[in-house]
Amino acid sequence: MNWTLASRAARMNPSFIREILKVTERPGIISFAGGLPSPKTFPITEVNAAVTKVLTEDGEAALQYATSEGYSPLREAVAKMLPWHVSPDQVLITTGSQQGLDLIAKILIDKDSIIWVESPTYLGAVQAFTPMEPRVVSVACDDDGLDVDALEVQLNHTPADQKPRFIYLLPNFQNPTGRTMPESRRAKLAVLAQAHGLCIIEDNPYGDLWFDEEPPATLTSRNPDGTIYLGSFSKILAPGLRLGFMVLPPVLYPKMLQAKQAADLHTPSLNQRVLYELLHSDFIPQHKPSIRALYKSQLEAMLAALDREFGRETPRTVTWNKPIGGMFLWLTLPKHMNSQALLHKAVAQGIAFVPGAAFYANEGEMEHNKLRLSFVTASVEQINQGIAILAKCIADEK
Amino acid sequence: MNWTLASRAARMNPSFIREILKVTERPGIISFAGGLPSPKTFPITEVNAAVTKVLTEDGEAALQYATSEGYSPLREAVAKMLPWHVSPDQVLITTGSQQGLDLIAKILIDKDSIIWVESPTYLGAVQAFTPMEPRVVSVACDDDGLDVDALEVQLNHTPADQKPRFIYLLPNFQNPTGRTMPESRRAKLAVLAQAHGLCIIEDNPYGDLWFDEEPPATLTSRNPDGTIYLGSFSKILAPGLRLGFMVLPPVLYPKMLQAKQAADLHTPSLNQRVLYELLHSDFIPQHKPSIRALYKSQLEAMLAALDREFGRETPRTVTWNKPIGGMFLWLTLPKHMNSQALLHKAVAQGIAFVPGAAFYANEGEMEHNKLRLSFVTASVEQINQGIAILAKCIADEK
Repeated sequence: MNWTLASRAARMNPSFIREILKVTERPGIISFAGGLPSPKTFPITEVNAAVTKVLTEDGEAALQYATSEGYSPLREAVAKMLPWHVSPDQVLITTGSQQGLDLIAKILIDKDSIIWVESPTYLGAVQAFTPMEPRVVSVACDDDGLDVDALEVQLNHTPADQKPRFIYLLPNFQNPTGRTMPESRRAKLAVLAQAHGLCIIEDNPYGDLWFDEEPPATLTSRNPDGTIYLGSFSKILAPGLRLGFMVLPPVLYPKMLQAKQAADLHTPSLNQRVLYELLHSDFIPQHKPSIRALYKSQLEAMLAALDREFGRETPRTVTWNKPIGGMFLWLTLPKHMNSQALLHKAVAQGIAFVPGAAFYANEGEMEHNKLRLSFVTASVEQINQGIAILAKCIADEK
Repeated sequence: MNWTLASRAARMNPSFIREILKVTERPGIISFAGGLPSPKTFPITEVNAAVTKVLTEDGEAALQYATSEGYSPLREAVAKMLPWHVSPDQVLITTGSQQGLDLIAKILIDKDSIIWVESPTYLGAVQAFTPMEPRVVSVACDDDGLDVDALEVQLNHTPADQKPRFIYLLPNFQNPTGRTMPESRRAKLAVLAQAHGLCIIEDNPYGDLWFDEEPPATLTSRNPDGTIYLGSFSKILAPGLRLGFMVLPPVLYPKMLQAKQAADLHTPSLNQRVLYELLHSDFIPQHKPSIRALYKSQLEAMLAALDREFGRETPRTVTWNKPIGGMFLWLTLPKHMNSQALLHKAVAQGIAFVPGAAFYANEGEMEHNKLRLSFVTASVEQINQGIAILAKCIADEK
C-alpha cells in the first residue's frame, strides 16, 4: 500500500535522548541520564484519597466529556496560585506542558518561520516545533543563561523579514544546563522585548524547585501581553498525570483553544479534578518544601562527589556549575574530549548521562565536551559511586 | 505586541457544535444535542477500585513518566481484544481517539493534500485535519453509509495528481447519521481500495455499541497494511479518562510515534494502568452488554415517540432511520425546512438537537433539512416529552 507521508515527516526524527535512555535502562546501571523526578516525591496516598473524593462526590462529571478550556475551578486555582495578575480566562489546561509547545507550534509557526532558542535548549521543545518546519536560530548563552547583550546585538542586526515569531526561553534551572537568568538580565530583556516587539515563550517547569531563595520574577509578569507562559505539575505533583497549563495573552486564547480542542478535546477530567483537590486543600503548597529539601541534598551530594573526584586537579580540566534549583547540572570536559564517546565507556562501567550534543538545535553549535547530569533520580550512595566511576572513565580518556 | 499567527490559524474556526452546546446548556432543557455517553454507564466504583489497586501495587510507576508507545501490558491487552490479528507493536495508545486524528493530520497531510470523507462526517475529524490545510472532498453516502458504487466512479475519474492521501470512514453507527455499512459494501470497498491503492482511516468509536448483532468485520481486518484503525474507550468505559488507541501498519508506526512523543510525551500513566486493570479483570467485556441494553431501550423509546408523533402523517413529511447501534439517529424534515432555524424555536420551547449542516465538510454540500438526535443522554420520560415538543415545533413551521 502506498501511504504518502507529509513532507514535514521527513524532518521528524527519533529523540536522541530516548534512544540513549533505552541503552541506559540496563538493570543495575546508575543513571544520571533521565529527566525523571524522584518517585520518592510522588504523593501516592494523597492522589488516591483525592481520586476517591472526586469519584464519590461527583464521579459522573469526573468521567464525562468536559470543556476544552479545562475545569473551571482548576483554572481559577491556577490563576490564583501564580504570583502576578492572571485572569482564569487566560488559563488553558494542557495534557502536560509538552502539549502547550505543540499548540504553540500549530498556531505560531509557518513553514520557514524563524524562531529563536537558547543554546543549548530543551530538546522536547525543538521536537514539538519541528513538525511545523521552522528555521531554528540559537541565541548565545553563558553561565547565567541567555546572554541578553548578545540578544540585543542580534536584534539590532536582524532585518525585518528575518524577525523571529518568538524566542523560547527557560529562565529557571534550565534543562539541560541548570542555569538561571538573574534579575538584571530579566529586567533588560523585558525592555528589549517590548522595544523590538519580540514575543516570548516562557517555559517554567522547574520554577518551584528552588533551593535557598525564589528565582526572580517571571518574564511573563513583566510583559504579559507579549509572553506565553507554560507551567507544569509534573515536578511538584507527578508527571504520570500529564497536567500542565498555558497562560495566554487574551488575543491568542481563541485560536489556542481551537487547536487544543482539535488535539485531544480536553485534558482528562478525572486528572484535572484530582489536581484541583490537591491545590484547593493546600496539599501542593505544603508538599513543595519537601521536594526542594530532597533535591537540594541530592545536589549537595553530587557537588561534594565532584569536588572529591576532580577538586584536586591543577589546573582544573573538568568543571561544572552549581545550580540554585531544578534537577540538572552541566559538566564540562577538557576541550578535546567527546562526551558521546565517553558515554559508551561509561555505560560499560555501569553509569549513564546525556551527552551535551543532544540539546543543540543545530549541528554546527554542538559542544561535544559537555554533558548533563541529573542529581534527583539516583540515591546519594549511587551518586557517590557513580561520580567515582565517571572520574575513572574520564581519567582513562585523557 | 505583534504576535504573528501561522497562516493555518485563519482556517481554524470555533466548533459549530460547541457553540450550539453552549446555547443548549440552559438548565432544564431536554437535550438530544450532545454526543455524551449516558453517565449511568460510568463504572465509578470499579474505576475507583482500579485506581486504588494500581496506586497501591505500583504507585511510583503509575505517577512517573512513561514510554510514548503506551503501557506495554495495555498494548498487549488491546491487541488481544481485537477480533483480527494485531501485534502489540502496532498499537499506539492515544489521549482519546481524537489525538489519533491529530497525529494522522501531522504525518499524512501536506498543505493542499486531498482527503476524502463521508458526507456528512464527524466534525471533530475535519477539525483535526484542518490545521494541516487539506482540501476535503466528500464522497456520496446513503442510508447504508458510504456509497461504494459512487466511490468506484469517483476513483475511476480521479487523475493521478488528485489522488487522496486517504479516505476517512466511520463504518459503524456513524456520527452523525447512525448509519452502518453492510457486509457487501465492505467487501467491495476492500477490493476497490487495494486495486486503487486507496488508503483508509477507519474510525470506530461506537463499534461495541451494537444492539442485536455485531456489525460486519472491520475494514482494517480486510486490508491491514492499507488501513489505520482508531479505537476508543470513551463509549465503553468513560470519556473523561481520555483513552484511545491506533492500530497502525508497521511502516507508519515510527513517524506516528514521533508525532505522539512531540504532542504530549505519553498518555497519562495512571489512566492507562487503570484501563489495563479493567480490561485484564474482564470487567469491560462484562460491562458492554449492559450499555448495549440501555442504549437499545433508549433508541426504542425514541423510535416509539417518533412513530407516535409523526407516524400517522400521509404522506410522510418527517422521516428518520433506525440505527442498529450507537448513539445517534438522523432525522429528515420536509425539503423546505431549515433545521438551524428550527433549533432556535426548539430551544425556546425547551429542547435541543444539532442541525445537520454542522456535519458537512463543505458548505455547498450541506443538507439544511437534516438533524441529529442523540438517544442516549436523555431519560425515556424526557425522550417522550422532548419528541412531542419537537413535533409541535415542526408543525408550527410547516
